[in-house]
Amino acid sequence: MSVILSGNEIKKQILVELKDEVDHLIEKNIKPSLSVILAGGDPASEIYVSSKIRTCQEIGIQSVARKLPQSVSQQELLEVVGELNRDPSVHGILCQVPLPEQCQEEEVLEAIDPLKDVDCFHPFNVGLLATGNPRFMPCTPYGILQILKRSGILTKGKNVVVLGRSNIVGRPLSILISQKGWDATVTLCHSKTENIEEVCSRADILIAAIGISKFIKREHVKKDAVIIDVGMNRIIDPTHPKGKRLTGDVDFEAVKDKVSAITPVPGGVGPMTIAMLMLNTINAARISNDLPLFQL
Amino acid sequence: MSVILSGNEIKKQILVELKDEVDHLIEKNIKPSLSVILAGGDPASEIYVSSKIRTCQEIGIQSVARKLPQSVSQQELLEVVGELNRDPSVHGILCQVPLPEQCQEEEVLEAIDPLKDVDCFHPFNVGLLATGNPRFMPCTPYGILQILKRSGILTKGKNVVVLGRSNIVGRPLSILISQKGWDATVTLCHSKTENIEEVCSRADILIAAIGISKFIKREHVKKDAVIIDVGMNRIIDPTHPKGKRLTGDVDFEAVKDKVSAITPVPGGVGPMTIAMLMLNTINAARISNDLPLFQL
Repeated sequence: MSVILSGNEIKKQILVELKDEVDHLIEKNIKPSLSVILAGGDPASEIYVSSKIRTCQEIGIQSVARKLPQSVSQQELLEVVGELNRDPSVHGILCQVPLPEQCQEEEVLEAIDPLKDVDCFHPFNVGLLATGNPRFMPCTPYGILQILKRSGILTKGKNVVVLGRSNIVGRPLSILISQKGWDATVTLCHSKTENIEEVCSRADILIAAIGISKFIKREHVKKDAVIIDVGMNRIIDPTHPKGKRLTGDVDFEAVKDKVSAITPVPGGVGPMTIAMLMLNTINAARISNDLPLFQL
Repeated sequence: MSVILSGNEIKKQILVELKDEVDHLIEKNIKPSLSVILAGGDPASEIYVSSKIRTCQEIGIQSVARKLPQSVSQQELLEVVGELNRDPSVHGILCQVPLPEQCQEEEVLEAIDPLKDVDCFHPFNVGLLATGNPRFMPCTPYGILQILKRSGILTKGKNVVVLGRSNIVGRPLSILISQKGWDATVTLCHSKTENIEEVCSRADILIAAIGISKFIKREHVKKDAVIIDVGMNRIIDPTHPKGKRLTGDVDFEAVKDKVSAITPVPGGVGPMTIAMLMLNTINAARISNDLPLFQL
């Protein structure tokens, strides 16, 4: 029987540790704070932002959602970023994507002060990460590393196959997990990879982040492999009360008794992302007070 | 019989193209210029710097070596960087490493204006590269890609194994060659990799950058693979007139009749690095004049 790696449970542990650290900072008169910019009314974005704000409240981080209309101009958006950059009481800033179509995401993300960039999307922070000297951690990749670490799954010398080369998950994760300390041998696969089934079937740890529902079947996985499923695919399902449901990139039912451990969807990687955002916000507050980074 | 991939020949072709571009810029009254900071008297560094300056002269790039004493302080070094940053007639700046031991490399490299960072070592430029939006190209990795491209070796969908995770070669190359356009499936190996022989023997293209003389033997390579040898190891050889000679990370004699193509050492990857430095200097001049990047 394989182990189900519960992101929900690990998130709870981590939030206890982070709340403790927030309490320590508050004792020193440092009140960590996060500002979330939400431009437009995308329903999924509204849910994500509410969830981030709620988690901040749970552990004592001050948080503000700055809601801007769907019609916001690039210039207005950049002015809000500039204002938050200059406000010393704001430690972390994130701008929820996607932006309205008249706005240029790249320019907005680069406008955020790298010392407040809690999503770790600014090129300067990505560069620090890539050169092995990270300040903030990319939230989903580092959440995955915490699942592995806290489940006693060693990565050193292991064959890790990462499926998907996005700038949010696959790319930064493939960099991080092959660095000193994690020391995995990483193969990064993507839409142009040939014989992807064969490559996957050699993985000791398989991390799927390609956004294709149930792409990974039983024949893709090695016996006793560890499977991390980053997929969040909404598929139509008339038998479900809401008419649709969330699935991963892995065919969970088909592989679960072949592998040694697997993350479920939902309740696996998803919850970890917000926990790591909290870590980064705490570290933004520490950086602005010349304190060393808090490590998990 | 395998093809010997001559970096010397490819460098010559590229320098002709780059000289042409320099001539175009000079017609527009733009004189590309490179400043090289050399702190201390390391003999290998002096040779590298002379070679860079000589190549600049060959194609019409203005170049200046700023020699600083071995005893230079961090503060003095940063002041020179600041002065070159502010000088609009200086387009490219590089600081030859290693620095004297009292200096901190990381701080110096981060002090160089990212718009003049022709080595592509600044975290901001590494981040742009990692997110698929490069400005400058890392010289040795991009030199390797030019060897492949100009020799008609396709990378799309190929299994590429990179040996070595340094910030100068292995890491940026593994990122670049797995990005859109190059589209290789990349496995990054390092000192902690298990069964490295087996991993290497699956490579369609094997790129060795670990700094161990003749590490790659005949049994490590697949028949008809392409081998790129980044090694520059100085080994003692009493039979050689100088008492030592340069060897690669690959046992050239042992593998040459098994593979389809291979770079020699010397004369393979080495010459390409300087050619790419020239490209970056031209692009630094173009950037400072609001011109789009020149592409090879």
